[in-house]
Amino acid sequence: MQVFLNGRFLPEAQAVIPISDRGFLYGDGLFETVKITHGRPLWWEHHMERFLNGAEFLKLTLPWSPAKLREFAARLIQENALPESVLRVTLTRGSGPRGYSVKEANCPTLAMTLQPLPVCVTSVRLAVASLRVLPENPIAKIKSVGKLTQILARAEAQMLGADEALLLNAKGFVAECAASNVFWLENGRVCTPPIESGALAGVTRRVVLDMCAEKQIPTGEEQIKPAELFGVDGVFLTNSVAGIIPATDLNGRVLLQSPLVRERLLRCLPTRRTCG
Amino acid sequence: MQVFLNGRFLPEAQAVIPISDRGFLYGDGLFETVKITHGRPLWWEHHMERFLNGAEFLKLTLPWSPAKLREFAARLIQENALPESVLRVTLTRGSGPRGYSVKEANCPTLAMTLQPLPVCVTSVRLAVASLRVLPENPIAKIKSVGKLTQILARAEAQMLGADEALLLNAKGFVAECAASNVFWLENGRVCTPPIESGALAGVTRRVVLDMCAEKQIPTGEEQIKPAELFGVDGVFLTNSVAGIIPATDLNGRVLLQSPLVRERLLRCLPTRRTCG
Repeated sequence: MQVFLNGRFLPEAQAVIPISDRGFLYGDGLFETVKITHGRPLWWEHHMERFLNGAEFLKLTLPWSPAKLREFAARLIQENALPESVLRVTLTRGSGPRGYSVKEANCPTLAMTLQPLPVCVTSVRLAVASLRVLPENPIAKIKSVGKLTQILARAEAQMLGADEALLLNAKGFVAECAASNVFWLENGRVCTPPIESGALAGVTRRVVLDMCAEKQIPTGEEQIKPAELFGVDGVFLTNSVAGIIPATDLNGRVLLQSPLVRERLLRCLPTRRTCG
Repeated sequence: MQVFLNGRFLPEAQAVIPISDRGFLYGDGLFETVKITHGRPLWWEHHMERFLNGAEFLKLTLPWSPAKLREFAARLIQENALPESVLRVTLTRGSGPRGYSVKEANCPTLAMTLQPLPVCVTSVRLAVASLRVLPENPIAKIKSVGKLTQILARAEAQMLGADEALLLNAKGFVAECAASNVFWLENGRVCTPPIESGALAGVTRRVVLDMCAEKQIPTGEEQIKPAELFGVDGVFLTNSVAGIIPATDLNGRVLLQSPLVRERLLRCLPTRRTCG
């Protein structure tokens, strides 16, 4: 596999970073996970908008423009012959002096890697994680490399026999899942927690909300307690790789799935089953 | 400079990790920062206790025992001729399949590096950071590599003309500083926020509390609002490198420092000005 690292295309085994990289030392960086389909990145502009916002928030300088990164991505897809794949773009602050201060750390690391598209899941079982997320957290909006909460939540959910973790915020409201945003259908509306709940500003989340607006399907960004999810007409998750994934149960208890409502709504959404 | 990486001693320029390391990709790791003085690690057992607790929490297997790590550290100190320095021990989950799941990621990365001891600060000016931390957060207790909140808080404090950031939790109570724990003196007692406030379980924090107990100085683990710090007899910070550092002001307003009370209390604490 060829990867891109700081301006060079090289075999993955040669793609290394110094142990002084602040991404490795302090989680001081950002990433994007972009689905590649038919050889092209899906929702590239949305991903790059979040990436640039994140870089600005962290005061990181992007060494190449999004247009240039897209060229590098195209070459990576071609060289690896992986038109159906997952692209990861990682930006860290690179190396600098010891300590948290960002002064004198001026040489960011930029890495791009491709992975084959994973087997597409058609549904997921959820479990509420015991770890909470912080509401009204500006860092949650960006896709920082610091994913320990999500990693531990996922591991806990898997231990409980589920596939994915439902994360609540410190106030007990639903925020997101470990690697996806969460939606529910209620009274003909497509609802999701607001970003202020502590959710990542997911690209597919945004696409779903935009598509609903375009099709004049009512939406809502609302707070919800996990127990209330048993009273709605359907729950689904979104992420950039799998698109839209229905959730079948929560903590071992079946989540209602009203097929008519779900079909009617989801048929409108072009990201549905974009995976595989 | 020689460093230790996965069982080998090698020049820093050759110490690299693959870009697939989960420390770099997801902040999936831990570290310790240990002061080396007179060629020996200070509070080594305390650091290793926290390190082992953190590894257990993350279900990471330490590739060497703490005793073996101490031998490696001793060799590193000797080879670099740095008897007064700062040792960093980093443990990450190493490489694994794409995604948050920790399955099949079984080969942890262990790195140890030395840095010269920084110039010792004799006091710090504090500023309250706008970023909050999560209270009752089990991850906050361990020293994970995910330090973005602390990095951004420090940068904000420095922008405001201060040296260090005071971090509040989501409830508005004082939790910790970016790279230190916070204490205050009140009615002859040495107080600090409880770990449940969202504070790191700092080694020097523990040493101070233990020493107070030994000297029969009353202590308290209490919630406090930042404005209340103006009404106490003194505020100081603790960290493993600088020891105890008095805080002179908060958001540009002078913090009271009752010299008699402070001297009487701090004289008892052996970690005072251990730096430099």
